[in-house]
Amino acid sequence: MPSRILDKIDSPADLRKLSASELDQLAFELRTELVAATSIHGGHLASSLGAVEIILALHRVLDCPKDKIVYDVGHQAYAHKFLTGRKGMDATLRTKGGISGFPKIDESEYDAHDAGHASDALSTALGYALARDMDDSNATIAVVVGDASFAGGLSFEALNQIGNSQTRLIIILNDNGMSISHSVGAFSSYLGKVRLSHKYLTLRDSVEEAFSSGGRIGQSLMQFGNAAKDSVKQFIIPESSFFESFGVTYIGPVDGHDRATLEGMLRRAKRADGPVLIHAVTTKGKGYKPAEEHPDLFHGVGPFNVSDGKPLASGDVPTWTSTFANELIKCAADDDRIVAITAAMADGTGLKEFSQRFPERFIDVGIAEEHAVTLASGLALAGKLPVVAIYSTFLQRAYDQMMINVALQNQHVVFCLDRAGLVGEDGPTHHGAFDLSYLRTIPNMTILAPSDDEELRTALRTALSLSGPVAIRYPRGAARLAPASSELPAKEWDYARARLVREGNAANLLAVGSMVSVALDAAELLHDRGIEVAVFDMRWVKPLDIETLRWIAWGAPLFTLEENSISGGFGSAVLEALTDEGLPAPLHRFALPDSFIEQGRIDELLAENGLDAPSIANRIAEAIGQ
Amino acid sequence: MPSRILDKIDSPADLRKLSASELDQLAFELRTELVAATSIHGGHLASSLGAVEIILALHRVLDCPKDKIVYDVGHQAYAHKFLTGRKGMDATLRTKGGISGFPKIDESEYDAHDAGHASDALSTALGYALARDMDDSNATIAVVVGDASFAGGLSFEALNQIGNSQTRLIIILNDNGMSISHSVGAFSSYLGKVRLSHKYLTLRDSVEEAFSSGGRIGQSLMQFGNAAKDSVKQFIIPESSFFESFGVTYIGPVDGHDRATLEGMLRRAKRADGPVLIHAVTTKGKGYKPAEEHPDLFHGVGPFNVSDGKPLASGDVPTWTSTFANELIKCAADDDRIVAITAAMADGTGLKEFSQRFPERFIDVGIAEEHAVTLASGLALAGKLPVVAIYSTFLQRAYDQMMINVALQNQHVVFCLDRAGLVGEDGPTHHGAFDLSYLRTIPNMTILAPSDDEELRTALRTALSLSGPVAIRYPRGAARLAPASSELPAKEWDYARARLVREGNAANLLAVGSMVSVALDAAELLHDRGIEVAVFDMRWVKPLDIETLRWIAWGAPLFTLEENSISGGFGSAVLEALTDEGLPAPLHRFALPDSFIEQGRIDELLAENGLDAPSIANRIAEAIGQ
Repeated sequence: MPSRILDKIDSPADLRKLSASELDQLAFELRTELVAATSIHGGHLASSLGAVEIILALHRVLDCPKDKIVYDVGHQAYAHKFLTGRKGMDATLRTKGGISGFPKIDESEYDAHDAGHASDALSTALGYALARDMDDSNATIAVVVGDASFAGGLSFEALNQIGNSQTRLIIILNDNGMSISHSVGAFSSYLGKVRLSHKYLTLRDSVEEAFSSGGRIGQSLMQFGNAAKDSVKQFIIPESSFFESFGVTYIGPVDGHDRATLEGMLRRAKRADGPVLIHAVTTKGKGYKPAEEHPDLFHGVGPFNVSDGKPLASGDVPTWTSTFANELIKCAADDDRIVAITAAMADGTGLKEFSQRFPERFIDVGIAEEHAVTLASGLALAGKLPVVAIYSTFLQRAYDQMMINVALQNQHVVFCLDRAGLVGEDGPTHHGAFDLSYLRTIPNMTILAPSDDEELRTALRTALSLSGPVAIRYPRGAARLAPASSELPAKEWDYARARLVREGNAANLLAVGSMVSVALDAAELLHDRGIEVAVFDMRWVKPLDIETLRWIAWGAPLFTLEENSISGGFGSAVLEALTDEGLPAPLHRFALPDSFIEQGRIDELLAENGLDAPSIANRIAEAIGQ
Repeated sequence: MPSRILDKIDSPADLRKLSASELDQLAFELRTELVAATSIHGGHLASSLGAVEIILALHRVLDCPKDKIVYDVGHQAYAHKFLTGRKGMDATLRTKGGISGFPKIDESEYDAHDAGHASDALSTALGYALARDMDDSNATIAVVVGDASFAGGLSFEALNQIGNSQTRLIIILNDNGMSISHSVGAFSSYLGKVRLSHKYLTLRDSVEEAFSSGGRIGQSLMQFGNAAKDSVKQFIIPESSFFESFGVTYIGPVDGHDRATLEGMLRRAKRADGPVLIHAVTTKGKGYKPAEEHPDLFHGVGPFNVSDGKPLASGDVPTWTSTFANELIKCAADDDRIVAITAAMADGTGLKEFSQRFPERFIDVGIAEEHAVTLASGLALAGKLPVVAIYSTFLQRAYDQMMINVALQNQHVVFCLDRAGLVGEDGPTHHGAFDLSYLRTIPNMTILAPSDDEELRTALRTALSLSGPVAIRYPRGAARLAPASSELPAKEWDYARARLVREGNAANLLAVGSMVSVALDAAELLHDRGIEVAVFDMRWVKPLDIETLRWIAWGAPLFTLEENSISGGFGSAVLEALTDEGLPAPLHRFALPDSFIEQGRIDELLAENGLDAPSIANRIAEAIGQ
């Protein structure tokens, strides 16, 4: 193997010794590594390919870890990991105990925060910057934010204070015109216009004028533009006044793959005495043809064949997501009140086909979960039936809006929580480990947990037939298929009634969602040991099936099973009900621990937390003394 | 009593019959009523005084309830209530069973949503507007948003879609330059510049040009300004391009007390085929001299003397808020890592004096709870010790940020939750009834609940001495004073240890926070009946004092007492611990119900929910069979 430049980079300081051509070679090597690592483990390839030059420029101009780089979402930061001592990502990226797919403070002193949820980087970076000011330090703080993340409300809240504080902060707007698929919203259109109507800056352009005038709110750009030199006119444009009205000096647009120009601007921005935004236009998937051509498919990608980009696994398995999406289309064909809402996840939540079938009843609000939920409340108030499909972990962002805008007004909004439970390789920021707990705190909320594809379909129909807020939670990945049955499936679930899916006298297993199949497996293992346990698919987490609890609470010991935190979840609901009903049955709760769970395959993580069938069978056998 | 115009207004339609001078008289009568009603019951006076002409103009131009008016926060909408059939507010405003201080859909068909939390009106109104478009209706949707609410991230998320959708929507930016005290942030500075640098529009100005050009993103305002007539130049200014870059036609500024001009603009805006923003500049407290002079004191005001504006109750009682604030100042004097953060509530959370003592370590982020929490995580990552003081109900908005930005990174951030438990007259949007439940779902979170002023001081010192996220929750109003004691108070609490505050053998009462004093009162009532019960001040909700539970679980029956929802709260935590420890003690949970609680005096609401001492004593006596 010819010696690579990458192999000689032990820390970012080594970058500063390289020539321009060596840096070009390094960028190529980094991209090769990114493709190699994600082709094995999957991951966020397209964004990381697009950010290579931005990251190289930052690490040449900044002096990390004294200086800080905060990456929004962090899925674009793989090159940062390679350059800061974490080689061998092709061996362990996104695996249990391996390198995380996101920046992580416990992993490296070069990582400034645990990234994963969008739009939090500006606030975090401002925290670093204000602390720096309090300490009279001269550290440089930089923050890299994608155009889609920039449109999240939290980013605007931060920008509002950044402009006001006039603290030293370098903001790189990494504008690839893409969210996961295409970006939406007026802000995106605005950026698009800026991108299209102006030449990119180059090293030859003088940017001094921008700095000498910048950072003052509402300064007349018209006047300035007239007075300035031609080279300035190119980039000091009326459109830039969006950022200028926040008191942030705008520079751009600049080709985000022109490393040398980026470096020049960063060096100048580092000397500025206030916040500076560099508008870098990048190509998502840059340098790997399949990703450039299909950046949406290579946003979050599974293992693939490097030569043609084709996925290694066949994508034909029905997933929970596709089951939901197909059923919603059927329901929407019959009920024109139904409106589907996603927050930048038309693909991830399966709503793409819905958006094509019913474009007038499909709304993608961008990365704006709070708005998605409040908008849904407005639609419901006006007589529509909104279905809000958001990943479990991201719906956490709209907790207050579910509480105040939907539940308090008791509006009929159906929340479809995809990726509930463990998600695997994306790790702690992406596991949906808390939804049963946080949803249960909301008055008027109904919570349904289907255990297979047929159950998901009937759960959705049930949710649409109820009133008030209703949440349905289902896991990531391939759907468990309903056992073949001679019975025609019921159209809707009986209100607040569980279903008995296996009989037995030694114990009662009360399972929800994904844990029903695990409970059945455990029951089979126990059967092999001569122990017959009953398994209930509880279906309803709120309201609970009190009748069934009354019936079984005087009999064999109870075990609850859920893929959700043990703190305040389904097991706690059963405890509360038993206590309030005066039913003092012994109960053991199988659940995820009250802690954050790291990355790994779902089966590994379940086993580690005692939620695999053998562990459960052993624990039950032990508890009932057999 | 001379006949009033107000008495002849049965619905908004009656407004359209009035002459200009009658409308002026009506505005005066409305203000007199607003002052009278709030002088008796307290309420949000200053904002409501400032919005009288906006509301009159809207109800003359719109045809409600077919058309909709959505009020952000809703505390400015008292005049709307008077004009839509809810007279006699001086009799029942904010009392139990009476008129709510906020718009409320169950109260009137003229109220478009249950308001109370900031920045949700644009999203709600957009929901109404998009539903209207789907239904091919021609209803007009208007939304009134204050400048402080407009800077909340949720508002920007909505604006992003409003501009993109180009739906018909009239946005009134009610700009009084004030949040509860003064507005903060770059957006506010921007509005201030627009206000100060331009003449107000009048009826004589032609606004046709604005409409003929508006609603297109990024249109060159320079070119337009040059080509347009002088009258247009006054208001089509570079600064307006902030809204124009979102695709929203901007008109203004206009004097928000010039009803006739407002009406003219509304009539024109109603005919526009896209979103229009009218920038109305108002005076908070308008028309009542004490409120105009001290709009901060009359934002949310208690009963006062109309003639001079002086409060009826003396303000010298130590409150939970002032106790917290004074202790924090002492702590900050000794530890310069401490940074205090508020979200537009420097007065409400008591931090005003802190801001004067330590201006460089005080941050008001405006109405931006998510940013407040994420900023705190950044400060903590950089070695600071942030103390985030936010009302319990508003901290719900930062649930995900507490989870991902603080708890996942296990950063030492102290959350001080004021107004935890019932708040009384502000009703369901303001009660802090859920914090123990939602905080308990967050891994790594420590939750402390002090029961008197001395306990709050030591809780704060304890929180500052711990690591990771720590929350302290305390109620609204006058602090319960610690009993005089010969012992010197402890500086910090023993880790995860409750304290026994009354001995007894018949039952064990486990109380947290405000319920400790109620438990002691109940114990005294039981004592009078010959029943001696023990009372524990549990102090720690997470982690619980397991040792004490182990000690008492085999003895007398247990009763938990909390001013928090019964779903997932402190009682559930005790249940979980007892179950996991295999301690099958009978337990009864006293808590708020799993439903939204209406307005009323706190003592009324507690009694209604069985949380007063007599009800608790009776229930305990019954349970233990005596």
